[in-house]
Amino acid sequence: MTLRDLLAEGRFVRLVGAHDGLSAMLVQQLNFEGIWAGGLGISTAHGLPDAGLLTMTEVLHAATVMRRASTLPIVVDVDSGFGDAAIVRRMVRLYEDAGLDGICLEDKEYPKRNSFCDGNRLAPAEDVARKIEAAKASQRGTEMMVFARHESLIAGAGMDDALARAALYRDAGADVVLIHSRQPTAHEVGTFCRRWAAAGGDLPVCAIPTTYHQADVDELASLGVSIAIYANHLVRATLRAMQVVLDSLAKDGSTARIEGEIASLASLFATVGMDEPVAVGQVTP
Amino acid sequence: MTLRDLLAEGRFVRLVGAHDGLSAMLVQQLNFEGIWAGGLGISTAHGLPDAGLLTMTEVLHAATVMRRASTLPIVVDVDSGFGDAAIVRRMVRLYEDAGLDGICLEDKEYPKRNSFCDGNRLAPAEDVARKIEAAKASQRGTEMMVFARHESLIAGAGMDDALARAALYRDAGADVVLIHSRQPTAHEVGTFCRRWAAAGGDLPVCAIPTTYHQADVDELASLGVSIAIYANHLVRATLRAMQVVLDSLAKDGSTARIEGEIASLASLFATVGMDEPVAVGQVTP
Amino acid sequence: MTLRDLLAEGRFVRLVGAHDGLSAMLVQQLNFEGIWAGGLGISTAHGLPDAGLLTMTEVLHAATVMRRASTLPIVVDVDSGFGDAAIVRRMVRLYEDAGLDGICLEDKEYPKRNSFCDGNRLAPAEDVARKIEAAKASQRGTEMMVFARHESLIAGAGMDDALARAALYRDAGADVVLIHSRQPTAHEVGTFCRRWAAAGGDLPVCAIPTTYHQADVDELASLGVSIAIYANHLVRATLRAMQVVLDSLAKDGSTARIEGEIASLASLFATVGMDEPVAVGQVTP
Amino acid sequence: MTLRDLLAEGRFVRLVGAHDGLSAMLVQQLNFEGIWAGGLGISTAHGLPDAGLLTMTEVLHAATVMRRASTLPIVVDVDSGFGDAAIVRRMVRLYEDAGLDGICLEDKEYPKRNSFCDGNRLAPAEDVARKIEAAKASQRGTEMMVFARHESLIAGAGMDDALARAALYRDAGADVVLIHSRQPTAHEVGTFCRRWAAAGGDLPVCAIPTTYHQADVDELASLGVSIAIYANHLVRATLRAMQVVLDSLAKDGSTARIEGEIASLASLFATVGMDEPVAVGQVTP
Repeated sequence: MTLRDLLAEGRFVRLVGAHDGLSAMLVQQLNFEGIWAGGLGISTAHGLPDAGLLTMTEVLHAATVMRRASTLPIVVDVDSGFGDAAIVRRMVRLYEDAGLDGICLEDKEYPKRNSFCDGNRLAPAEDVARKIEAAKASQRGTEMMVFARHESLIAGAGMDDALARAALYRDAGADVVLIHSRQPTAHEVGTFCRRWAAAGGDLPVCAIPTTYHQADVDELASLGVSIAIYANHLVRATLRAMQVVLDSLAKDGSTARIEGEIASLASLFATVGMDEPVAVGQVTP
Repeated sequence: MTLRDLLAEGRFVRLVGAHDGLSAMLVQQLNFEGIWAGGLGISTAHGLPDAGLLTMTEVLHAATVMRRASTLPIVVDVDSGFGDAAIVRRMVRLYEDAGLDGICLEDKEYPKRNSFCDGNRLAPAEDVARKIEAAKASQRGTEMMVFARHESLIAGAGMDDALARAALYRDAGADVVLIHSRQPTAHEVGTFCRRWAAAGGDLPVCAIPTTYHQADVDELASLGVSIAIYANHLVRATLRAMQVVLDSLAKDGSTARIEGEIASLASLFATVGMDEPVAVGQVTP
Repeated sequence: MTLRDLLAEGRFVRLVGAHDGLSAMLVQQLNFEGIWAGGLGISTAHGLPDAGLLTMTEVLHAATVMRRASTLPIVVDVDSGFGDAAIVRRMVRLYEDAGLDGICLEDKEYPKRNSFCDGNRLAPAEDVARKIEAAKASQRGTEMMVFARHESLIAGAGMDDALARAALYRDAGADVVLIHSRQPTAHEVGTFCRRWAAAGGDLPVCAIPTTYHQADVDELASLGVSIAIYANHLVRATLRAMQVVLDSLAKDGSTARIEGEIASLASLFATVGMDEPVAVGQVTP
Repeated sequence: MTLRDLLAEGRFVRLVGAHDGLSAMLVQQLNFEGIWAGGLGISTAHGLPDAGLLTMTEVLHAATVMRRASTLPIVVDVDSGFGDAAIVRRMVRLYEDAGLDGICLEDKEYPKRNSFCDGNRLAPAEDVARKIEAAKASQRGTEMMVFARHESLIAGAGMDDALARAALYRDAGADVVLIHSRQPTAHEVGTFCRRWAAAGGDLPVCAIPTTYHQADVDELASLGVSIAIYANHLVRATLRAMQVVLDSLAKDGSTARIEGEIASLASLFATVGMDEPVAVGQVTP
């Protein structure tokens, strides 16, 4: 089911951040609604900081690996669009051709830095609006959705700025408003939703409960959020899990101790499948 | 330190299987000697079975991502060489140019299947020798090592076949003998090492303690093994860890419960680094 | 217009071999019906012999560059399918997802050599049929066409073999019969068409008039050919043209003499276009 | 021979613009000193305008194809560096690892437009100097050369600006000064060289005789130029040559008329080589 269909049906959409084919495949196997091909996850999987270092085509490549591994809708984090409106135009055509379902454009200067780090500059709202217009004008089909990500609250520009930008980006053609917050509760996001609705805001609101992770799906929905992005939990889980294995192997000189704590080969084969006529053999874990 | 230097110094070499930049980086941070860019890990990360489906250049791309993330020696699993000797020649030049330190050629027919699955056919020893010769002849520098991986024991062709092939592959120029076994103990590998040494075998022996994981580094070394490959533990660890997070998120509707069990964002940033002038902000876990 | 639509309308289809984005763009600007993403052209553009050296994904990358540069139907030369049926299955999904309109599978052993060179071996007809079946079964949409390329006449296996294989491949699901010949006239191709039609052959026939280049479109059509591939002329034209420029530059120490014989910068800009708001400046040739 | 060695010996260096493997191979076969992997050529081969649309990794990929096809020094046109200093740092490491011999950084804002078009903005000299410093600091070996390309004369900022920037960029670590001019004669370039030398300028000067193509190697050398880039002639030659073939094929319905005017298959095979054991068959043109 497409992202638009899910939203039209009033379904709450949980996008889980994946960083490669396996993670994308697992998000589908656990029945989530969609995949977030996030900058932090993809950069980390490359061994790079989330600092806008990967190119537009490297991110496209990573998202394509996910596309091949899952049929879920995929929304790609394209940071500030990798350049100006001309570059956004090419990007949209390439991403749409690759069968991706959404892109998320962020209102920071190129190149951006992770929102939980310093060094970011909010881009002039008009420049962002022009990129959103370029994105929507370049899209050939009707399915792909443009998420406009607002960093006003992160950047300290305040709620009024966030709302003014939301209206401007919606007028430019954005399909979803993504309000980013790094508060420990969802209160700020709730305020945004209420004021956005009061002002006649007619786009779905998306949130990223990284710091306010106590807020569950029901709470977010009750605040007026339609889409939640669990941006970085899978890659963080892999980091810890690999450290544990490596630590154990380094100390013990063997993997005996952790064999039971990691997935068995049989379980791994069952997950990624085996093309016929290859039958999975009998393997001890 | 290069792989050759490590072996020359009599160091036991532990190659840990990585599948992307982050895993390669962690292998280095935990002070292992080198990285195994393995077919199972890389295929799984792509959401694909280990069935020879990735192309020579897709594997090269994955190994290059690791190369950029770590300065450790990297040995790449090239299955049966992706084709005939002409293809092996091109592959060796490309892999050497990419700064990779070793390739591991396996004596199965192209395309191969995972050694723990059915459907594999042992390739004629002479064909394999010709590929090894092609590989060594194409190499421009002296550093890159060719591992010749013997599947005789896996394929049920027996110990004599394994030893005959080891001698043939050494004569063809192989730098390392990799003896693969899927027995629950290292006994079979020990027999190979003893008979190989008795016959004047003068190449380092490499083993993959997947099924005989009780055998630790000391036991393997005492048997005559110089290099051990921990082929699939990191990717198996990521699989389990991601399943746990997804399961929890699906049930709870939030990540609150597993936040403490996965790496914090701060720890993630500390791992992949942040290029100056970006300073990591204060983040709640 | 799709390839199927063109053939359904009874249009004679001329596929011109392109090797990059510019050549693909020119084939469209000159109003040909489609593009042949040929192994010889793509290999040559990479500075490689047409010897099956490029991987399935390198060819896909080259075809994708063409896809982005032209809206014409593109048929990709996939040689013998880069491996076995499992590999063909993956290939078909990837090529279809990339928006390519056809693939041409050849009945030679992997890896293949150029048909005008020695060293080729005809593959067992049953193996080829199995790959064609795998290709058709993997296809998700209805548009992509599978060309089955017969090398019987090239390999000296004779006309009866060519016809028997054509029938077998059609039964396996092929959409087009490609009969390859290296005779100096189209006579042999005509014989094939006549006997194929007499036997109730109901697939369009495709020919590659490289050696019998005197046969024009009308002659080929009158023989029963529906599709002609001009496989290598563009890349051969670029080779000669570049040699002339380099030779002149080497001798003269300047490009003055050949400036008038090559495209002007203005003409080049007019060909590839300039995204607004970039206006082409006034340039002396 | 490396670029540094060539310059140290006082050799005049002619860099010819290539856009793919074949063109790179031909530049070597005709005994030029090096290859210019130029933005205009590479963009055009992709069917794109020279408007900074290709990503850093797409350009790297194109340059790598050339690297595999030729052993000549390759200098890559990286426009304004694809972003800020952090991006330049990553780029330099990747390009150096890929065995490329030089990069040419241009003092225009990202994303740049072709110098013969409107829409370009000169970047603040200090920003450019910081990128040059970042480039040199990131370089691990000593061979790779950084060309600093000055667009002052193109942008109408005048000779004094060009000289001031040259000094600043040299102090930042640049290895070569590239002075770009679009005058119909080399007079302006000569003036720059004279004043640069008079001011003690101690870096080799590079020029791009596109508009002043009457100036031959001897004239350029006598003016004080050490390196000339023939940036776009090969791609322009291919454009014209392909148009002629397509035009002829469209009109005639066959390639008979142009067979003699394009390279023969035999000549093509002789150029790209055939890996043994493949012998080139007897082919009629």
